Amino acid sequence: MEIKVLRNILGANEQLANKNRELLDSNGVFTVNVMSSPGAGKTSLILQTIKRLKGELRIGVIEGDVSSSLDAEAVGKEGVPVIQINTDGGCHLDANMLQNALANMPLADIDLLFIENVGNLICPADFVLGEHKKVVVASVPEGHDKPYKYPRMFNEADAVLMNKIDLLPYLDFNREEFYRAIKAIKGSAEIIELACTTGQGVEDWLDWLTAQMKK
Amino acid sequence: MEIKVLRNILGANEQLANKNRELLDSNGVFTVNVMSSPGAGKTSLILQTIKRLKGELRIGVIEGDVSSSLDAEAVGKEGVPVIQINTDGGCHLDANMLQNALANMPLADIDLLFIENVGNLICPADFVLGEHKKVVVASVPEGHDKPYKYPRMFNEADAVLMNKIDLLPYLDFNREEFYRAIKAIKGSAEIIELACTTGQGVEDWLDWLTAQMKK
Repeated sequence: MEIKVLRNILGANEQLANKNRELLDSNGVFTVNVMSSPGAGKTSLILQTIKRLKGELRIGVIEGDVSSSLDAEAVGKEGVPVIQINTDGGCHLDANMLQNALANMPLADIDLLFIENVGNLICPADFVLGEHKKVVVASVPEGHDKPYKYPRMFNEADAVLMNKIDLLPYLDFNREEFYRAIKAIKGSAEIIELACTTGQGVEDWLDWLTAQMKK
Repeated sequence: MEIKVLRNILGANEQLANKNRELLDSNGVFTVNVMSSPGAGKTSLILQTIKRLKGELRIGVIEGDVSSSLDAEAVGKEGVPVIQINTDGGCHLDANMLQNALANMPLADIDLLFIENVGNLICPADFVLGEHKKVVVASVPEGHDKPYKYPRMFNEADAVLMNKIDLLPYLDFNREEFYRAIKAIKGSAEIIELACTTGQGVEDWLDWLTAQMKK
């Protein structure tokens, strides 16, 4: 019974996601769903990307948070269109929330749209939104064992961004174990090492991202 | 309709939690529900506590994880009774899961029981388990703004453990902002600064914990 209800919810979500995808495609908006634990660096990644690509691409951002509009304010300072979704306790974004947000986005004026999901390594993995790519930000201080503990999320990742590598000298993080775990769960996922606050490795991320947009 | 269903679920959970609490009380088991983001240091906290208090108190651990038994294996090496709950995708522990785990715990031989919840700053906040105290581990690399973003979780905290303070020199973490946020959300929460991997500040945590047990 519970499983049937869940299936119906996910089925309805998928239908809405397909509609979102059609809307995004018809406007030529390449869309990336950014997921991670709280504080892994989703907002920093988006801010770095905006700063580097602002002259080349028109970027928009949809910020998903349980509460507050801190991230939307930070992104808004970069002068790009941004919409805040507050889930009011909800643990993930869904396609319906995205549909409502897209209705308020100037899609004709956007080439690249980031959706910053709610900080949570579990629930957002189950809800497709209509995005073209999903990226998971995995922060080095969280430890190398996270892929084994949250396999569903890492299985969704087109790219895993290993963030905060500037902290590696101070942590007991086993890079080989981390790579091995991701290869075991999602062999096709691109792994990109970077530090969004210092800028190290951000070029690799931009190369991957812009290559995906050209496909 | 959805809200009513949720209320019924939470109501049923609370009834079971009360039964768990009675069982724990009748066995004299002081129980702490440890919650945090993925990788904030829940297991390290529990390991440090076991190492320091092993001679004084009989400790047991219930490990909640979406997947894997890595934490239970690490804790088991310390020679304490440990039970792993795998939620198989579920984003929180509930009182029913705890009831099942308690049935397999040697409660008569335990003074202090840790429940390590699923790594998630959202959903576990809604589910009381029957514990005596709730502590939230907030890791410094996650940033000082987390209480504003996840207020429901911080509002549940009897103590907030500001972990990984050994990384403060390398991070843009505003301690005053962090304290201000917690005071605004849960003025009564104890804030304890520590680094579970180096041991710094762990004494403060043990002082607080053992004081709660004597109350």
